[in-house]
Amino acid sequence: MKSRAAVAFAPGEPLKIVELDVAPPQKGEVLVKITHTALCHTDAFTLSGDDPEGVFPAVLGHEGAGIVVEVGEGVTSVKPGDHVIPLYTAECGECLFCKSGKTNLCVSVRATQGKGVMPDGTTRFSYNGEPVYHYMGCSTFSEYTVVAEVSLAKVNPDANPEHVCLLGCGVTTGIGAVHNTARVQEGDSIAVFGLGAIGLAVIQGAVQARAGRIIAIDTNPDKFTLAREMGATDCVNPKDHEQPIQQVIVEMTEWGVDHSFECIGNVNVMRAALECAHRGWGQSVVIGVAGAGQEISTRPFQLVTGRKWLGTAFGGVKGRSQLPGMVEDAMRGDIKLEPFVTHTLPLDRINEAFDLMHEGKSIRTVIHY
Amino acid sequence: MKSRAAVAFAPGEPLKIVELDVAPPQKGEVLVKITHTALCHTDAFTLSGDDPEGVFPAVLGHEGAGIVVEVGEGVTSVKPGDHVIPLYTAECGECLFCKSGKTNLCVSVRATQGKGVMPDGTTRFSYNGEPVYHYMGCSTFSEYTVVAEVSLAKVNPDANPEHVCLLGCGVTTGIGAVHNTARVQEGDSIAVFGLGAIGLAVIQGAVQARAGRIIAIDTNPDKFTLAREMGATDCVNPKDHEQPIQQVIVEMTEWGVDHSFECIGNVNVMRAALECAHRGWGQSVVIGVAGAGQEISTRPFQLVTGRKWLGTAFGGVKGRSQLPGMVEDAMRGDIKLEPFVTHTLPLDRINEAFDLMHEGKSIRTVIHY
Repeated sequence: MKSRAAVAFAPGEPLKIVELDVAPPQKGEVLVKITHTALCHTDAFTLSGDDPEGVFPAVLGHEGAGIVVEVGEGVTSVKPGDHVIPLYTAECGECLFCKSGKTNLCVSVRATQGKGVMPDGTTRFSYNGEPVYHYMGCSTFSEYTVVAEVSLAKVNPDANPEHVCLLGCGVTTGIGAVHNTARVQEGDSIAVFGLGAIGLAVIQGAVQARAGRIIAIDTNPDKFTLAREMGATDCVNPKDHEQPIQQVIVEMTEWGVDHSFECIGNVNVMRAALECAHRGWGQSVVIGVAGAGQEISTRPFQLVTGRKWLGTAFGGVKGRSQLPGMVEDAMRGDIKLEPFVTHTLPLDRINEAFDLMHEGKSIRTVIHY
Repeated sequence: MKSRAAVAFAPGEPLKIVELDVAPPQKGEVLVKITHTALCHTDAFTLSGDDPEGVFPAVLGHEGAGIVVEVGEGVTSVKPGDHVIPLYTAECGECLFCKSGKTNLCVSVRATQGKGVMPDGTTRFSYNGEPVYHYMGCSTFSEYTVVAEVSLAKVNPDANPEHVCLLGCGVTTGIGAVHNTARVQEGDSIAVFGLGAIGLAVIQGAVQARAGRIIAIDTNPDKFTLAREMGATDCVNPKDHEQPIQQVIVEMTEWGVDHSFECIGNVNVMRAALECAHRGWGQSVVIGVAGAGQEISTRPFQLVTGRKWLGTAFGGVKGRSQLPGMVEDAMRGDIKLEPFVTHTLPLDRINEAFDLMHEGKSIRTVIHY
């Protein structure tokens, strides 16, 4: 079938709106009509050409919502008409990782997903007869996309897809990092570095966990209004201080914060986030994705004196088990998604959405098909 | 009073056996007759001059056992004749850290201890009228030493002091790291880097925790016999492999070990230890003390894919609460201390004990007064 799509033909170039050919779903696969997709810095990172795993041409996009159109052989968990959110972190329920009860990092489709192909090693997208690659197992920048069954969360059809598409990545990652990775407890202090969608979601998660002090940090003070609305108790602009930001936070809190979250992808900020964690038990969660080959560093004394350095992917959330419940949370208002949607645009203006993101003007732009 | 002591008069020089003057214990302090002391790499590190906190002249030594001789004003928890182990990690029970229930890093005497003085800012040792500094709150290289009450664990007087002095540092650190920091569970796999006293103690702790595979790693294969006797299931010499050691361990275990422990103080090994931890949930505990200014590094991807980087000091053990029980464990044979004591020497041959350590010939040399 034919599908309108925004295709990344080459690194560093704007996406092109074209009509792709989409092959039918194979065994264990599902054809989904995407109704809404947002975009995230990871899409921009891959589009830039800096992502060593990036393959071109490809259909990017991994934060979307849609409706099942057709299922391949053996698919039993979804049927045509079901509302779904594609998952870049699959959940097969059967691999060593899914069964461990300790992580959401399912490996069922990991190897092929990283190469931009479906589990059988081929692609369902083509353009003028040439293959076009998948991305993060989702490819939500195509109106019709093919996704592995294990990469689909079935959600309440009454949910607003313009909002819940955001649970496909950023918001879930931030909220999940608070509950699943850091396990923030009532009264704990936290510091959030970077007030994009993930950082704001961390604040929401911290409010849910009844955290005490919530310190929001960004070099762009325009972000502080929304951070405060979501529940930040303190806002700090590192540019207002001569000292390193970790020292500022430690002085504000005497010994540092119980939990810190890096939501940018900057390895220097990751260090600052660790070093502002509380002596004895503070922990820091790396959420942001750093550039290829970049490394984090610190003095081991930081760990020996009780700090822990952690990381999270998709907030430790098991998508098929847990995302439906998060959609319900959003419908009840326990997760507030509307404030994240600062812009909406039609597919053919998707490149403007990237511009808004790069200019720091949007939290999320949602694309309507 | 007078006391025989091995004094570090200047960095890089051998210790000198002299007769010091020891002032009486002040408020909250205790005079202890040390009967046995071992030495540890941290003593050697400070003696070398590389320790930025090192002050001279000083009485080093922090792994000892002794008997209370006299108590200062207000001391209630010990009395003359009690058998004690000095603690370089105090436990006051009243500070933020002691009360947290999350850490053993008591701060009651931390500031002054780091400067080589007692809590009132002065020293109890002098030589020819000039002050001689304390070390790590213990100074077990003097037959008579003054220690803060909060820095003394009262232990069973029937315990063999030649053995239980080792619980003052290395053995407790290794065993504690397994139980308190990593919280190793039955069946878990572990990797231990460095088979000195701490590494061997980690193996003992892992056996107590009923760990599954216990992989012992050292570049000196002479250490493997004792490691196997203590419970190592695999011994690996990195020099036997062309690949980086983390890759060797990952290949041996498919996805890495559940827990790894760095017991050397080498920042490159700390990285290897992290990177051989299991994808999704593996954790690595830094135990070794790195050289001044040295830093650890890795790609943040290691954390984002589920590894955790931790550290420990004194194995997370609260000395006054928990060390008496570990002494009982040793008396019952649940902690085996005898194999660690490879050499014994009188005080006046303490410099030979440093040589044995540097040559890798001893696990622990215990000094008898």
